[in-house]
Amino acid sequence: MPIDDATLDALDTWWRAANYLGAAQIYLLDNPLLRRPLTRDDIKPRLLGHFGTVPGLNLIYAHLNRAIRERDLDALYIAGPGHGGPAMVASAYLDGTYTEKYPEVTRDEEGMRRLFRQFSFPGGIPSHAAPETPGSIHEGGELGYSLSHAFGAAFDNPGLTVVCVVGDGEAETGPAAIGWHSNKFLHPVNDGTVLPILHLNGWKIANPTVLARIPEDELRALFEGYGYDPIPVEFTAGEDHREVHRRFAEVIDDALDRIAAIRENARGGDLTRPRWPMIILRSPKGWTGPREVDGDPIEGTWRAHQVPLAGVRDSPEHLAQLEQWLRSYRPDDLFDESGAPIPLATALAPEGNRRMSASPHTSGGVRHPIVVPDFRDYAVEVDESRRGATDAEATRVLGVMLADVIRRNPTSFRLFGPDEVASNRLAPPVYKATAKQWVAEMLLVDRDLATAGRVMEMLSEHQCQGWLEGYVLTGRHGVFTSYEAFVHIVDSMFNQHAKWLEAARAVPWREPIPSFNYLLSSHVWRQDHNGFTHQDPGFLDVAVNKSAQVVRVYLPFDANTLLSTYDHCLRSLGYVNVVIAGKQPHPQWLTMDEAIRHCTRGLGIFEWAGTEVSGEAPDLVLAAAGDVPTLEVLAAAALLREGIPELKVRVVNVVDLMRLLSEHEHPHGLSDADYDAIFTSDRPVIFAFHGYPWLVHRLAYKRHGHPFLHVRGYKEKGTTTTPFDMVMLNDLDRYQLAIDAIDRVPGLAEKHATFRQRLVDDRIRARMYTREHGEDIPEVADWRWST
Amino acid sequence: MPIDDATLDALDTWWRAANYLGAAQIYLLDNPLLRRPLTRDDIKPRLLGHFGTVPGLNLIYAHLNRAIRERDLDALYIAGPGHGGPAMVASAYLDGTYTEKYPEVTRDEEGMRRLFRQFSFPGGIPSHAAPETPGSIHEGGELGYSLSHAFGAAFDNPGLTVVCVVGDGEAETGPAAIGWHSNKFLHPVNDGTVLPILHLNGWKIANPTVLARIPEDELRALFEGYGYDPIPVEFTAGEDHREVHRRFAEVIDDALDRIAAIRENARGGDLTRPRWPMIILRSPKGWTGPREVDGDPIEGTWRAHQVPLAGVRDSPEHLAQLEQWLRSYRPDDLFDESGAPIPLATALAPEGNRRMSASPHTSGGVRHPIVVPDFRDYAVEVDESRRGATDAEATRVLGVMLADVIRRNPTSFRLFGPDEVASNRLAPPVYKATAKQWVAEMLLVDRDLATAGRVMEMLSEHQCQGWLEGYVLTGRHGVFTSYEAFVHIVDSMFNQHAKWLEAARAVPWREPIPSFNYLLSSHVWRQDHNGFTHQDPGFLDVAVNKSAQVVRVYLPFDANTLLSTYDHCLRSLGYVNVVIAGKQPHPQWLTMDEAIRHCTRGLGIFEWAGTEVSGEAPDLVLAAAGDVPTLEVLAAAALLREGIPELKVRVVNVVDLMRLLSEHEHPHGLSDADYDAIFTSDRPVIFAFHGYPWLVHRLAYKRHGHPFLHVRGYKEKGTTTTPFDMVMLNDLDRYQLAIDAIDRVPGLAEKHATFRQRLVDDRIRARMYTREHGEDIPEVADWRWST
Repeated sequence: MPIDDATLDALDTWWRAANYLGAAQIYLLDNPLLRRPLTRDDIKPRLLGHFGTVPGLNLIYAHLNRAIRERDLDALYIAGPGHGGPAMVASAYLDGTYTEKYPEVTRDEEGMRRLFRQFSFPGGIPSHAAPETPGSIHEGGELGYSLSHAFGAAFDNPGLTVVCVVGDGEAETGPAAIGWHSNKFLHPVNDGTVLPILHLNGWKIANPTVLARIPEDELRALFEGYGYDPIPVEFTAGEDHREVHRRFAEVIDDALDRIAAIRENARGGDLTRPRWPMIILRSPKGWTGPREVDGDPIEGTWRAHQVPLAGVRDSPEHLAQLEQWLRSYRPDDLFDESGAPIPLATALAPEGNRRMSASPHTSGGVRHPIVVPDFRDYAVEVDESRRGATDAEATRVLGVMLADVIRRNPTSFRLFGPDEVASNRLAPPVYKATAKQWVAEMLLVDRDLATAGRVMEMLSEHQCQGWLEGYVLTGRHGVFTSYEAFVHIVDSMFNQHAKWLEAARAVPWREPIPSFNYLLSSHVWRQDHNGFTHQDPGFLDVAVNKSAQVVRVYLPFDANTLLSTYDHCLRSLGYVNVVIAGKQPHPQWLTMDEAIRHCTRGLGIFEWAGTEVSGEAPDLVLAAAGDVPTLEVLAAAALLREGIPELKVRVVNVVDLMRLLSEHEHPHGLSDADYDAIFTSDRPVIFAFHGYPWLVHRLAYKRHGHPFLHVRGYKEKGTTTTPFDMVMLNDLDRYQLAIDAIDRVPGLAEKHATFRQRLVDDRIRARMYTREHGEDIPEVADWRWST
Repeated sequence: MPIDDATLDALDTWWRAANYLGAAQIYLLDNPLLRRPLTRDDIKPRLLGHFGTVPGLNLIYAHLNRAIRERDLDALYIAGPGHGGPAMVASAYLDGTYTEKYPEVTRDEEGMRRLFRQFSFPGGIPSHAAPETPGSIHEGGELGYSLSHAFGAAFDNPGLTVVCVVGDGEAETGPAAIGWHSNKFLHPVNDGTVLPILHLNGWKIANPTVLARIPEDELRALFEGYGYDPIPVEFTAGEDHREVHRRFAEVIDDALDRIAAIRENARGGDLTRPRWPMIILRSPKGWTGPREVDGDPIEGTWRAHQVPLAGVRDSPEHLAQLEQWLRSYRPDDLFDESGAPIPLATALAPEGNRRMSASPHTSGGVRHPIVVPDFRDYAVEVDESRRGATDAEATRVLGVMLADVIRRNPTSFRLFGPDEVASNRLAPPVYKATAKQWVAEMLLVDRDLATAGRVMEMLSEHQCQGWLEGYVLTGRHGVFTSYEAFVHIVDSMFNQHAKWLEAARAVPWREPIPSFNYLLSSHVWRQDHNGFTHQDPGFLDVAVNKSAQVVRVYLPFDANTLLSTYDHCLRSLGYVNVVIAGKQPHPQWLTMDEAIRHCTRGLGIFEWAGTEVSGEAPDLVLAAAGDVPTLEVLAAAALLREGIPELKVRVVNVVDLMRLLSEHEHPHGLSDADYDAIFTSDRPVIFAFHGYPWLVHRLAYKRHGHPFLHVRGYKEKGTTTTPFDMVMLNDLDRYQLAIDAIDRVPGLAEKHATFRQRLVDDRIRARMYTREHGEDIPEVADWRWST
C-alpha cells in the first residue's frame, strides 16, 4: 500500500524535529529555538557528542513509529550505535515520554533549554544511550553485542518486535559478527521477532568500515550466509526527503510483512528456521549536517562522526555555519510559540506504552516473578558424626534444583552456556525437564535438542552473556554457566553490565531487574586435566572492582551451601552474582540446616573442625574460601590435631567473599568488631583462598589483624597434572598449610621439629608418587575427615 | 596432475602412523608398540586428552607435507582446535623434529614409550598444542583467534604459507567470526598467504556446531560473503582411505594452485583484493576411532570429543575394544623392529626447516632486529626553572618517534589499533611515514589509506590483539594501541599470551620473541567526555596477576618519560609491556636527562617539588603514579607549601609500577631498605594512583610502612563531566589530597584548621563552578606549577 502524502509530511516533520533536537543537544546552552541570532554565549564551552549516526537513527525511529501505529506493534528499539544518544533522547522528547519521566524537562522553550543544556554537561546526562535514556536497554559503551541483547529480549516475548540497529563500526567486532547467528536459536512462535538493520554510514572515527567497502554481491552473500533475507536500501546526501521517506516506508513495510508471514506460517506448524528479513540501510554519516567545513567534506565522511563544526566558539564563520545548519531544520515550523512540538511533529508517536521509549520491557516494568522450589528438598544428606564421608558433585545437585526451576518458570527462566551445561554437570537432570533450543538441522543421533527448550548453548561466551543480559534487562531470569578461566572473555561485558546496574539505581523510573547470575565451574583447581591455559581465577579480581552496590561473590564449598546460595541469587534483584562451585565428586560437609545458617551469615567458624578451648583465644586461625581450599584446610586441621593436640586451632570458612570488606565499603561488609571476633586481631591467620592470594589482602588490608594474615592461593603455577599436585604447586596443600601454621605460631617450629619434618617429607613423597604413577597418592586421594 | 599410487601409499602410511601415535598418547603408559597383548597396567590411570579432532588434523598435516615437498613451500601449521595436541606431537615425532628438540624421546620403542607416557602426565606435556609443542605458535586454551594469529604471522612474510585449521566449535566464537575479515588487510605481494581450512567435524563437547547444521548453499554464501572462494570436500566414516587421499590431495592442490595464480597476478600489478581460496573440510569426529561403544555411536558424534573409550581400566570389553582400535592402524607395519617409523611412514616429511614442526618462524628463530632511533631526539624541552610551563600531548610526541621506528623498520614493525591510532593521537606524525593498510574499496575522499602500510586498523580489539600476537610470535615488532577501558575486551587473550610466554621460558629450544607492547591511552581520567562506560582502569589488575617474569607495567606521566619508557619496551624481549599514557595537552615536568634517570630507577623523589630539609625525615610523603595523579599531587604539594610552609613534604613518583613489589616477587621489585628509603617506614604516605586504589595495597601490603599508606584512585565514580570534576568525584583532586595530608600528620588539622577549611571551600567552589559553567574553574584549569 503506497504511503499517503499526509504520512510523508508527518514522517518528514518528525525527522526534521528529531534531527534539530539531536544537533542542538550537542551545541546549545541557551537560545534553544533560535528565536534570536545565535551568539557565542549560546554555545556550550565543551562540545561533546556524536552527530554522525543521529539522523539515521532518527529516520528509523520515525518510520517505526508509523509502523507501530498502523500495525499495533509492541516494539523495542536497540541502538547499537549507542553514541547516538542524542537521537534516543530526541525521540523520547518528541513522543512525550521524556517529560513524563523527567517533569522538569517540559514541552516548552524552557524545557527544551534544559534538555539541551543537560546533555554531556556536568550534572546532566551522558552523551550515549544510557540507563537515564527512556526506552534503552543498551548503552553505547563497549560496542558489539546489540544483536545478542536484541535476541535476549525477544526470547519468550512472542508479542515483541525488537528492532536492532547495528552500526557498521560495531559490525566489525567479534560479538556482533557472531550475534547474527542468533537466528539459529530463535523459536518462530514462542519467541519474539528481531529485525536487524545494518546501518552502513560508511565510516568509523577515522576509517571507512569494512562492510561498506566490499562489493554489493559479497555483502548480500554474507547476510544470506548468516541465514537472513537482506533488504538493501540506499540514500544519498542530496536526495529529496519525501522520496527518502517513501522508499524507506516501503522497505520497513516489506520487512514487517515478511515477518508477519513467517510468524503466521510458523503458527501453522512450520518450525524450521525461517529466513528472517534484515535491512541493509546505506545513508550518509552526518546526513543533513554541514556539507563542507573549511574546505573539507563533512557530510558523508568520517569527519561527521562527532561534532561536525568544532570551532563555533572561536570562529564566527563556524558559528554562522552552525546557525545556518540548525535553521535548515526550520525550528519555527516545528515548535509552536511556547516551544512545544506542533501536532504534526508528533503525529506519528504511538500511544502510551506502545511508544518505544515508554516500553515497560525496557524499564523493569514487566518483571516476571520467579518461582523457586524449596531448595531444602534437594539437600544432600550429611551425617554430623561423619562429615565428609559422602561425596557429591555440587553442580549436579544444583542441576536437579534448576530442572525444577525450569519446570516452574516455563516461559521466564533460561540457562545459557558456551557448550558447557553438560560439561559443568547440570546435565543430565536439566535435560529431564527441558531441551536445548536449536532452530537448525537436527539429526537422529542428536540428544536433548529441540526447536523449543530452556537451555541456550553456543560456543561464544559473548553471545551467552549478551543473550542473558537482554533477557534479564527485560525482566526475566537466568543463569550463565561457564568455565571459570574463560569467563574472562566477557570481562568487559561484565564491566558494562555492572556499570549499567549501578547507574540505573539512580534512575527513579527504572524498576529493579532480576540479577545476572554466573555459575562458574570447571574452576582453577580442577583444571588439572586441561592444564595451565585453563587455570585462571582472576575474574574475581575484575568483579570486585565494580560497585559494591551491585556485585556479590560467593564461594560455596559443597552441595548444600551451593543450593542455599543459589536460592538467594535466583530470588535477588539488581545484582551481578558471581558464584564459583565445583563439579567434581567432593566431600560434603554441612547439613542443610547448617548450610543455611552458614550462608546467611556468609562466613563462620567450623566448631566441629577446630580444637579451640571455650573461653580462650585460639593460637591460630585456619580459614578457607572455596571447595578445594576448604578441603585442604580441614585436612591441615586434622594433621595439626594429630601432631600437636594441644594447639588451639580455629577453623573458619568464608562463603560470601564480600564479608571480608568493611561495612563501610560493602553492604555485606563486617564491622571490625565482628571481623575480629571471628579472625581475631592478633593471632596468625592462614587463609587458603580459591583465587589469587592478594585478592584477600586487597579486601582485608584495613583489618586490625591484617599484619597476621597469611594467604595461600593460586599463584599462576600449573600444568596438566593431578588435582593434588595442582594444590602442591601453589603451596595450598594441607602439608604446606600445616607447615605455615607451625611456622607462624611462635615457638612451635622448634618444639615440633620432628612433626614439621614429617610434613615436609610427606609432601615430597606425595609429589614423587604422582610423578611415578600419574595419579594422587592414596593417602591424599582417599583421605577422609574423621572426628 | 593426478596423484600416483606411491604417494597415496605414503600419505596413508603417514596418516595411520600419526593416528596411532595420537590415540596411543592418550592411553598408553607402556607396551607402546603393542608387541604384547594389551593389559590394564599398560593404561594410564587418568585418561586425559581429546581424540575427536586428531585424525582430521593429521590428514591435513600429511597432505601439506606432500605439497611442501612438491612445491618447496615455506609453511606454518596453526591448529585452531588446540585440543588436538596429540596430532601436533605425533606429526613432529614422525618428521623427526620431536627427537631433535627432546633427545630423550628417541625414535625407538623406548622413545615411543616416553612419548606416550609424558602426554597429559604429571611432569610431562600438556594435552593441547602448547609452547612445548614443536612448530606451534597457537595454544588450545581459549578458542577463537587462530585466524588472527595466522594473518599476523603472514604479514610481512611474503614467502610464507600459513595453513590455519579452524574448528567448527571455534568458528562459533566472535574472534573467529571476525578473523575471516582479515583478508581485507592482507597485501597480496608484500604479505604471505593464509589458507584457512574450516574443519567441520560437526560437534563440540556436547552439541552440534552451528556451521555444520546450516544448508550447504548458506554455508557457501557465508564464506563468499567473507570474500573467499570456498572449496568444499566431505569424507564419511566408511570411505576408502585411498579415495580419501586422492580427493583431498586434489583439493589441496587446487587451493595452492589458486593461491599461486593469485600471487603471480598480484606481482603483475593487480593489487585489488583477490578472492583467496579456503577449504571446507567435512569429516567425522573421532574418524577411524571406535564406531560404537556400549551401543552408542561414537565415531562421527560428540561422544568422540575427548576419550572415546573411557572405561578401559575397569572394563575388559573396553580394553579389548581399545586394543582392536589401536591395532587397526597396524603398528607392526608402521614401525620397524627397533620401534622406528618405517621409511614409508616418514617419506613425506620435508627436509630440515621446511618441516612445519621445525619452522624457525615458530620458535623465535627468525627474530628481526629492531632499529630504534635515539629517543632523546624527540624530547620535549623542559626548563628546569619553569617546570610544567609547557604543555604537550605525550602520545603525539611518541607518534613522531614511532613514525621513525616505522621508517627504519619498513618490513618488521607495525602499529595495530581498533580505529584508535588517530584518536589516541599517534596521527598525524605516523601518517607522514606510512598509511593504513587497506585491501578493499578506496574512495577519493579517503585519507592515509593504501594497499600497503604499517598501520592496521579494524574495530575489533580481538583482531588487533590476535594479529600482533601472531606478528611477535613470528619474530617481528609492534604496538597495540587501545582505549584503556576497552582493552578489557582482550583480557582473556592477554592472559593466554602471558601464559604462553611464561611456559615458553622453560622450553630450551625457543628463542625469546619481541615483547607485546600495549599503549593504552584515552585513559580513565580523560574519559570525562565519553562518560562512565569508558572509565575503567582495571586492566592493570588483570595484568599484575600474571607471572612476574613476563609482565611489566609503566605509567609515564609526561612526554619525555613516555619516550624513555617506550624506547625500553620496543627493545625488550619476552615481555608484555603495559604502558598507560595521556593524549591530552598536559604539563611537562622532566627534562630528558631527568626522565632517563627517573625511568631507569623506575621511581624517585622529585626534590624540586618537595619541602624536605636535608638530613631530616619528611613529615609526609605525597606519591603519584600516572599523569593526572602526578599533576594533582604536584598541585597539592604547592597548596601545602603555601599554606603550611614548615611542613616537610616529600614528593615521589612511580613510573614502573612493579617497583612497589618486593624484590622476591618481581625482578623489578625494590628491597625493603630501598623502599623505606623512599617511602619511609613510619610517615604517612598519600598515594594518588591512576587505577583502582586497592591495587597499590595489593602490591605494597608487605612493606613496613603499609599501615601508613593511604591510597586515592578511581573508585568507580564518574559520568560525562569535566576532567577536574572526574578527579573530584573520586577524591583524587589536589584539595582532597592536601586535606588527606593535613588529616594524617598528627596535630596538623587542629593547628591549620583555617587553611584546611579553605581547601574544603575551594573544593566546593570548583564543583559549583563546573555545574554552572560546564567547564573547569579557571584557577584549576589554568593552574601552573611555580617554584
